[in-house]
Amino acid sequence: MLEIGHYVAAPFCTRLLADLGAEVLKIEPPGGDPVREWGEQIDGNSLWWSIHGRNKKSIALDLKKPRARELVLALVASCDALVENFRPGQLTKLGLDEHSLRSARPDLVIAHISGYGQDGPYRERPAFGVIGEAMGGLRYLTNHPPEQSSLPPVRVSVSIGDSIAGLYCAFGVMAALWRRRAAEESDSRGQSLDVALTESVLSMMEGMLPEYGALGKIKQPTGGAIATAAPSNVYPTLDHKWVLIAANSDPLFEKLTWLMGHPELAASPQYCSNQVRVQNAPMLDALISQWSAQFTEPQLLALLTARKIPNATAYTAADCAADVQYRFRRMVREVEDPILGRMLHSGIVPHFPDMPGEVRWTGPKVGQHTSEVLQELLGLSGEQIEALRRDGVI
Amino acid sequence: MLEIGHYVAAPFCTRLLADLGAEVLKIEPPGGDPVREWGEQIDGNSLWWSIHGRNKKSIALDLKKPRARELVLALVASCDALVENFRPGQLTKLGLDEHSLRSARPDLVIAHISGYGQDGPYRERPAFGVIGEAMGGLRYLTNHPPEQSSLPPVRVSVSIGDSIAGLYCAFGVMAALWRRRAAEESDSRGQSLDVALTESVLSMMEGMLPEYGALGKIKQPTGGAIATAAPSNVYPTLDHKWVLIAANSDPLFEKLTWLMGHPELAASPQYCSNQVRVQNAPMLDALISQWSAQFTEPQLLALLTARKIPNATAYTAADCAADVQYRFRRMVREVEDPILGRMLHSGIVPHFPDMPGEVRWTGPKVGQHTSEVLQELLGLSGEQIEALRRDGVI
Repeated sequence: MLEIGHYVAAPFCTRLLADLGAEVLKIEPPGGDPVREWGEQIDGNSLWWSIHGRNKKSIALDLKKPRARELVLALVASCDALVENFRPGQLTKLGLDEHSLRSARPDLVIAHISGYGQDGPYRERPAFGVIGEAMGGLRYLTNHPPEQSSLPPVRVSVSIGDSIAGLYCAFGVMAALWRRRAAEESDSRGQSLDVALTESVLSMMEGMLPEYGALGKIKQPTGGAIATAAPSNVYPTLDHKWVLIAANSDPLFEKLTWLMGHPELAASPQYCSNQVRVQNAPMLDALISQWSAQFTEPQLLALLTARKIPNATAYTAADCAADVQYRFRRMVREVEDPILGRMLHSGIVPHFPDMPGEVRWTGPKVGQHTSEVLQELLGLSGEQIEALRRDGVI
Repeated sequence: MLEIGHYVAAPFCTRLLADLGAEVLKIEPPGGDPVREWGEQIDGNSLWWSIHGRNKKSIALDLKKPRARELVLALVASCDALVENFRPGQLTKLGLDEHSLRSARPDLVIAHISGYGQDGPYRERPAFGVIGEAMGGLRYLTNHPPEQSSLPPVRVSVSIGDSIAGLYCAFGVMAALWRRRAAEESDSRGQSLDVALTESVLSMMEGMLPEYGALGKIKQPTGGAIATAAPSNVYPTLDHKWVLIAANSDPLFEKLTWLMGHPELAASPQYCSNQVRVQNAPMLDALISQWSAQFTEPQLLALLTARKIPNATAYTAADCAADVQYRFRRMVREVEDPILGRMLHSGIVPHFPDMPGEVRWTGPKVGQHTSEVLQELLGLSGEQIEALRRDGVI
């Protein structure tokens, strides 16, 4: 599997594939993927990169040199798939159009990720994750209702548009490989796929489009609540945590009112059914918040759990790191990074009990595997590799 | 492909597979998947369901009847994969444990989705999408910084934890099918996979865990901004829209200051580099907001686009529906629903130009395909089907 990618979406895609055992060769410019400079660093080494680049081999190539193009095509010959996320048309400018790639490997699966897709009026526009989230409809909805706040909508703090697109791409690559094999000799041509950040986000929007189309309803933000079920929100605790309580069925709500010492609420005309609870959710949430704020987080969780009312703390990084379930399932695990030392990684999703995979290595240095791969895969000699290095190709 | 699922995660997974052409049989109780009651309805018909159930066949079965279990196992024999999202252990109680399923189909891929995973101390706990989002670290971060607001963190308005888990599951199913075929005769046993909502969300959290592990840094919410780049946020317009502006490089920021009529800002000590811009982001965002609010959305977009400053409106449902790029690529398309009439659907992601797939049919009625499937796949006669109906099995 070849990655000619940068930043988040394509590298996230290939990391998922690498986590499941694929051999992923990442082509980087000699200066490295700029994502290596993102987030917290220790001595110039990115902590995020340790995850983002893990289980991949890094090959440094200056794609502006013609010899680099030949090397890419030679590598493509041994690959099942290529994943890229440059501006549409960029690979063609580098002589790596689909026709050239398929001349090197006729059944290559070629996966493109871009902001808006490979065609259409917006294809040339620059795009980032935030733009995908905005035009996919996510940003507008991630907000308090206007009657509660005039603050702008918020970002979820990570490039979720990029990651969702990367995940769609990983799904698409496997689907294309399955189809290729299912077709066997009959049609060995590899397929191309075209993933857009905007479309990946829009595809998550549930009934938003049909409800607009049929009823003219423009879906509106609901803060921490759910538009169709109440109470379901996060509530404050004495020790300044937020605890999610999902008591949005009549029996669960009744249990909650007992805990709150106000069983009469369950029968009151404002709160006696989900329908009226939704209408009066801001008032109900205020009541629950007054009650929850009397307890510390552990006290509140214990009360709710004893009554089997679904609950969860809005976890911080520290909470995730300490969680016994994540530790049990190795979703939070310690790995050894040769530069950064012992560190925390998230685990492998999805989990295959019989083949759980492993963090075989953490994010490599730029070009760490260049010589190894050119030697082993392409049979280049030490001298040839040295010459490429002198010429600034690798 | 068999789905024994309900609500969001498993049905979302199988819808993605069905969109790419898989034959998906959805087993529902005779009362229907409760998700059919979610969201806006027309005469009791859910608009969301039209998308959520599309391209699948609905088979109504009362799984509490022993005869229903036999029918499921008979259907499994003709399926490559099964996707389910009941509480862990629930299928086993119904006599549909992995051993029984594999007796019917030795190489069956079995995909489980649950809140916390199939093992570990939390496996029995109830979970919804909101709980996955809370414990995955997403909810805490989807907030304004505490110095800007004491409002609780917000939900992104859709069950994103469920959908991300469903997407991971679709990826995992295709990976398992690919592995099964790659192994060919040598190991025809199907694999199981185990997707947790919490883990699916946590896997999106980028450098959050390693940064906490190495530096003790607890990632904090940043409202609409990005913690490491400024300016990047949404800004208000005269006509009450939010427009995202990503001018977070020195050249882009300089262009923006010219547009704002304050080129001196680009050289000022508070804003002359990304580092200081990030430190002073709230002040900078306030300045940009004052400026942006003088223009209508179309005026602001035109100004920014002319200077090639990346921008996007935070789209509402109406904006998505009207967007020319979405229409060009059929990511927003009109489909005919036999009950609901002509309506808007989101398109198919990922896009395969040579095999774009189609909305072959919209979400079916409960049990719409029961007779057809029992007849065609299992060879049951009309009389046998009638008897099953009399006995309340179907």
